[in-house]
Amino acid sequence: MPRFMDVHYGMHGITAEQLDDVHRADLAAAHAEGVHFEHAWADPESGTVFCLSEAPSAQAVRRAHERAGQGVDEVHPVPLSV
Amino acid sequence: MPRFMDVHYGMHGITAEQLDDVHRADLAAAHAEGVHFEHAWADPESGTVFCLSEAPSAQAVRRAHERAGQGVDEVHPVPLSV
Repeated sequence: MPRFMDVHYGMHGITAEQLDDVHRADLAAAHAEGVHFEHAWADPESGTVFCLSEAPSAQAVRRAHERAGQGVDEVHPVPLSV
Repeated sequence: MPRFMDVHYGMHGITAEQLDDVHRADLAAAHAEGVHFEHAWADPESGTVFCLSEAPSAQAVRRAHERAGQGVDEVHPVPLSV
């Protein structure tokens, strides 16, 4: 399944607990879209969150985040990795 | 050791072989800066490359990429992850 890195901006001051909550909401919503969120990393200072997923399409990643009540600013297909 | 996600723009059309070469150059240069590059993901279409590392500082990540002959556009400390 294709892999994606999505990026959220504006999440300044996000805490570990909030990241856990957001990730849990994403996981619950993702199932309906066939998306598997693998990892998320957050920079509370710049308010940037990166999420790595496997998904049928970029649109599915976007819909999964929307179902979880979140916007997403960028969804990058990342067919290459090392 | 702190973890960082750095982002490179403008790498349109990067191939799997080029990503391997860049990652190998990074690994060689990283040692001198105490940086451990864990993974890299590339979106050839938008020209975006994401690198996850453990490093003593954001400056060390920046210097490691520079030693390898590459610029880096953003270096985000990512103290939170799930």
